Amino acid sequence: MSSPARMIPPAGISQKRELIERYLDRFIPPSDRYPQALHAAIRYSVMGGGKRLRPILALAAYETCGGRDETIYPAAVALELVHTYSLIHDDLPCMDDDDLRRGQPTVHRKFGEAVALLAGDALHDLAFELMARTKKPTVVLELAEAIGTDGMLAGQIADMEAEGRQLTLDEVIFIHTHKTGKLIRASVRIGAILAGASDALLDPISHYGEKIGLAFQIIDDILDIEGDESTLGKRTGSDFKNFKATYPGVMGLEKSRLAAQQLIEEAVAIVGRDVPQPETFTQIAHFIGGRRN
Amino acid sequence: MSSPARMIPPAGISQKRELIERYLDRFIPPSDRYPQALHAAIRYSVMGGGKRLRPILALAAYETCGGRDETIYPAAVALELVHTYSLIHDDLPCMDDDDLRRGQPTVHRKFGEAVALLAGDALHDLAFELMARTKKPTVVLELAEAIGTDGMLAGQIADMEAEGRQLTLDEVIFIHTHKTGKLIRASVRIGAILAGASDALLDPISHYGEKIGLAFQIIDDILDIEGDESTLGKRTGSDFKNFKATYPGVMGLEKSRLAAQQLIEEAVAIVGRDVPQPETFTQIAHFIGGRRN
Repeated sequence: MSSPARMIPPAGISQKRELIERYLDRFIPPSDRYPQALHAAIRYSVMGGGKRLRPILALAAYETCGGRDETIYPAAVALELVHTYSLIHDDLPCMDDDDLRRGQPTVHRKFGEAVALLAGDALHDLAFELMARTKKPTVVLELAEAIGTDGMLAGQIADMEAEGRQLTLDEVIFIHTHKTGKLIRASVRIGAILAGASDALLDPISHYGEKIGLAFQIIDDILDIEGDESTLGKRTGSDFKNFKATYPGVMGLEKSRLAAQQLIEEAVAIVGRDVPQPETFTQIAHFIGGRRN
Repeated sequence: MSSPARMIPPAGISQKRELIERYLDRFIPPSDRYPQALHAAIRYSVMGGGKRLRPILALAAYETCGGRDETIYPAAVALELVHTYSLIHDDLPCMDDDDLRRGQPTVHRKFGEAVALLAGDALHDLAFELMARTKKPTVVLELAEAIGTDGMLAGQIADMEAEGRQLTLDEVIFIHTHKTGKLIRASVRIGAILAGASDALLDPISHYGEKIGLAFQIIDDILDIEGDESTLGKRTGSDFKNFKATYPGVMGLEKSRLAAQQLIEEAVAIVGRDVPQPETFTQIAHFIGGRRN
């Protein structure tokens, strides 16, 4: 974790990210199509940057499992749209009431609350439309279950209910594995399923997804405390001060770093042992482990 | 339109409605399952009454087109959940800011804004989960397109943008056919598709759905002005006073009544001509035409 302040992703990851940007642009309605107010807010929120971790993971899983055609792209884009929908609704005044996201005004600060609400709803909907275009109901189910009341939404509620009190490690793990973990896990699973992966391959890939998903969120917690505000583009330290559900809030910064690093190593070990040609997975895991924004 | 104040639905419709209630109860998570806060709000919003028009229409279309097994129920329930999600978000303070729905406090008045937002999101999500359980990606697409930015959400935005000014008839028709019409049309289409209907059958059924969808909304406008507050369970007259986009606001009450009645007759004529055994469709159309709440 002694790398420079802004990590440059390895070539394979950069290439995937560029592909994703192109397909995001293709699958999102243009801003000049009616209703313009909504489409402008959608474009603003989706095209305003982001690591594209979930579509990159789906693409990596798809290729690792032998997938070779374009059916992966609508699914990969769907995962990013769902992530964006959750951020827009999470930023709303009745939730976290955030003014900035990636250094820019949040959607409701720029377009008003009503448009932000509906832009989130529209992305949620468009994600399912794109997922259904794969013609595989299984992956629609995977997505729905990952972000429903047994998944992401359970994490959201647990996070809200945690407000203002000190949590146990188990409670923080529950929040992290649900609020962000389930969708990251679903991203690799959906990529693998679309490539026709066997259960013998899907199992280790799911475990890999769980490990890197939790590691990703722990590192997010750490960056939120020590990160440079201009690099992250959002307020830092606020989660820690509010006793919000974070790893450093439970075990301190140093132990949190070790926990994240251990999860990364476990993820790498799992795919190293059970997945043929695991190089892309390994690369992404190390990239997550070393990220600075 | 001289029937008693509260219409009793014909036996066939009542029976379908009871079936729907049973499947709603079955497919919605119990209130005592985590996260209870969310599941309680979901149950409150879905099980608190409602005409169940969309699932009844899906069921009617399915049976009329020869469907005989239980695959229709998750799809029919999904349509009601999407409708409920749209009502919850529509009632929020940043949208219509309504305190009452069906004579009871709206979800955000009872459970708070954050829970209402997430309950809407959860229902949106669960609807797609149930639709995917039919194992037919086509109907997932039908649903997504009906409620996306070319469908329901376009109507929502048009309605918001209409606030405070007098509209033309074309503008009101656009709002009605999108905000409520597309989902009602999708309800009959999805039922027909799941039964394996041919295009020759799907076409008139779609037109029937368009006609009764618009009629339904015009009658809603009329009832909003003249309805008895205790029967409707929500504030009346407010849409009219605010110059909101309504048929009576454009052409007055009497012409609005005639327009609705004509659409009902056209709908009945379409299925009478092009759909074998159209009795259930006819019955539902007349029921919509005569409703008082």
